[in-house]
Amino acid sequence: MEYYFSDKLKALKPSAIREIFKSLGDPEMISLAAGNPSPLSFPVDDLARISADIFANSATAALQYGTTEGYAPLVKEVEKRMKEKFSIGREGDMTIITSGGQQGIELACKALCNEGDTVICEDPTFIGALNAFRSCGAKTVGLPVGDDGIDADELDRLIESTPTAKIVYLIPTFQNPGGFTTSLEKRKAIYNVCAKHGIMIIEDNPYGELRFAGEEVPTIKSMDTEGIVLYSSSFSKILSAGMRVGYMCGPEPVIQKMVVAKQSEDVHTNIFFQMLTYRFMTECDLDAHIAGIRKLYRSKCDLMLSTLDKVMPDCVKYTRPEGGLFLWLTLPDEINMPDFVKKALEYKVAVVPGSTFLCDTNGTVNAVRLNYSTPSDDDIVKGCTLLGEAVKEMLNK
Amino acid sequence: MEYYFSDKLKALKPSAIREIFKSLGDPEMISLAAGNPSPLSFPVDDLARISADIFANSATAALQYGTTEGYAPLVKEVEKRMKEKFSIGREGDMTIITSGGQQGIELACKALCNEGDTVICEDPTFIGALNAFRSCGAKTVGLPVGDDGIDADELDRLIESTPTAKIVYLIPTFQNPGGFTTSLEKRKAIYNVCAKHGIMIIEDNPYGELRFAGEEVPTIKSMDTEGIVLYSSSFSKILSAGMRVGYMCGPEPVIQKMVVAKQSEDVHTNIFFQMLTYRFMTECDLDAHIAGIRKLYRSKCDLMLSTLDKVMPDCVKYTRPEGGLFLWLTLPDEINMPDFVKKALEYKVAVVPGSTFLCDTNGTVNAVRLNYSTPSDDDIVKGCTLLGEAVKEMLNK
Repeated sequence: MEYYFSDKLKALKPSAIREIFKSLGDPEMISLAAGNPSPLSFPVDDLARISADIFANSATAALQYGTTEGYAPLVKEVEKRMKEKFSIGREGDMTIITSGGQQGIELACKALCNEGDTVICEDPTFIGALNAFRSCGAKTVGLPVGDDGIDADELDRLIESTPTAKIVYLIPTFQNPGGFTTSLEKRKAIYNVCAKHGIMIIEDNPYGELRFAGEEVPTIKSMDTEGIVLYSSSFSKILSAGMRVGYMCGPEPVIQKMVVAKQSEDVHTNIFFQMLTYRFMTECDLDAHIAGIRKLYRSKCDLMLSTLDKVMPDCVKYTRPEGGLFLWLTLPDEINMPDFVKKALEYKVAVVPGSTFLCDTNGTVNAVRLNYSTPSDDDIVKGCTLLGEAVKEMLNK
Repeated sequence: MEYYFSDKLKALKPSAIREIFKSLGDPEMISLAAGNPSPLSFPVDDLARISADIFANSATAALQYGTTEGYAPLVKEVEKRMKEKFSIGREGDMTIITSGGQQGIELACKALCNEGDTVICEDPTFIGALNAFRSCGAKTVGLPVGDDGIDADELDRLIESTPTAKIVYLIPTFQNPGGFTTSLEKRKAIYNVCAKHGIMIIEDNPYGELRFAGEEVPTIKSMDTEGIVLYSSSFSKILSAGMRVGYMCGPEPVIQKMVVAKQSEDVHTNIFFQMLTYRFMTECDLDAHIAGIRKLYRSKCDLMLSTLDKVMPDCVKYTRPEGGLFLWLTLPDEINMPDFVKKALEYKVAVVPGSTFLCDTNGTVNAVRLNYSTPSDDDIVKGCTLLGEAVKEMLNK
């Protein structure tokens, strides 16, 4: 039997990150390639205690079918927190609980884009979002993202010249993969450009609570007087990634359409863990828990940066993130990125090729992504030191 | 701001069942409209005990990101059970864990169908599947399903005259909404027709383990020498619906494409509950647990049938299912179905209009779906008795 696939999925490949993970079967390999939260960030004892109570007192509701919109008390609590922390939630907004932040992004594209429509993205950007757009048959077009975000004038011109543009996808805070944060000035300018064109923004903010340096920058959604911003976030980086509980807040007509689409995808998100998340939020001290994670990541990021400062020659550049999980390391022109990734594997260190995150699947960029949240402190030092040796070996050739 | 939606979602409405659920806010309303498993079918004590152990001994793995294919030990255990119970699993097959059976159906369509392609379905059929196909931009075309399934010759002619046909979607065992079971003879004939045309079959079997009368009929997947059958099932009806753990088994190239699509939808299914399901399967007696559910549903179905036999005039016909959750009640020509559904609501009984389950959204059928798994025994008797009174009132007008 010969199998024929849909046009939108024909070209879609498993992400390069997953391929790299296969090399991680080697127990000697140090991975700086992951995007996982630290296991130290899971509040296991509290979750265990609340779980036992749910089984004892609310088992039927927790194990039965639920509503697609999400467990109502959790929706309310999420809305309260978004309001308090990020000034999000205007008249006419609605929130849906999704199976991880990933699902919200995919549902939004499914609701708004026909095949052949265009999503404008930061370049590089989160591979999971790129593949979600592609799996809906949408094209992805990138705008270079610098230290402080994309350029609003360039965005204006790109929208002008792209009649199929339907969505602008942004990770303004501690961007994945770059660690970049878009400045307030640029956020305002980007919002105004999108409002002028009546084009929807997806503001993806999974790392927003993980600031460990610098000043808070207001979310784009907090400026959304026009109802053009879909705000996505999740509990993956602050409670548990494996439970798959995220959310999206946006204009009610759009969220309602996503509810209909979600009903056809997975009916609803795991109810037990929605209840568990709600109970943790209301019975435990989420702020204190997050403060602990920030402290942990500050120390891990500092350790990675100070090691890189020590071992890397000046021609190697990297971002100094103020939060999140990642930094972006740019190689000098003398070093070819794919060769470096291979050389790093010889040195038993896994990193993610920067080209993985490009809108153009044939594009290249002379950079790699490094993660500091997952590896142990020892592995951060050892891994970065080995990467330094790899760079030096390649420069001396 | 005016919002524009994708063509595939523009016309998609929340299912009529959900709309009926809103009337269930009335505490006096008896619902025979649900599709929920009985809460008595949740093995709460065992799940609670295993959960506590997972938190104590495997918390990190249970709360961290996992692989898209599914928790490997669960995949293996599901494959073992499919083999033992249903002779499923040939060389070249692969199994993916999905977020409920629903997700497998949607992913399969996403992988195989372009917008405008056609899925051939039993008519009536499961509304969740119809909406999944529609949300992928596929058209749904129906073949009437009788007591023993669709007609293979009609299917042959329909495929012949439908060049865009890509999938045949079937629920051969205890069909939703009809309660019909396709005979072995018809299964063979349908399989041969699809093999001849090289067209994929989705065999949806969420109720297959819930037989409480009659003889087992082999699955279509067990005949799949050609690699054309995608077999879908789930734990929703035998362990917990709210946890959203299902699976699909089929030819590896197709399942691999679904893995890529799933990665963009929700990355993976809730890991904790995948581990919980695996542990329940290997540490508890799933067969004995299912035997208990079968006994419960036999008694509930018998009660519904014996009550209907008592209260309904001969002109009202209904299926006598050998398993599953539903029966199909056909009204006499003198009674108009939408009027009956309204009249039933006046009598404080909710049922699902049969037209909900038709491939043609403008189609009509003079029947309703009744569910016996969710209501209490008292409500079954009271609800059916009230429906009988509604019928008599309408016949006497």
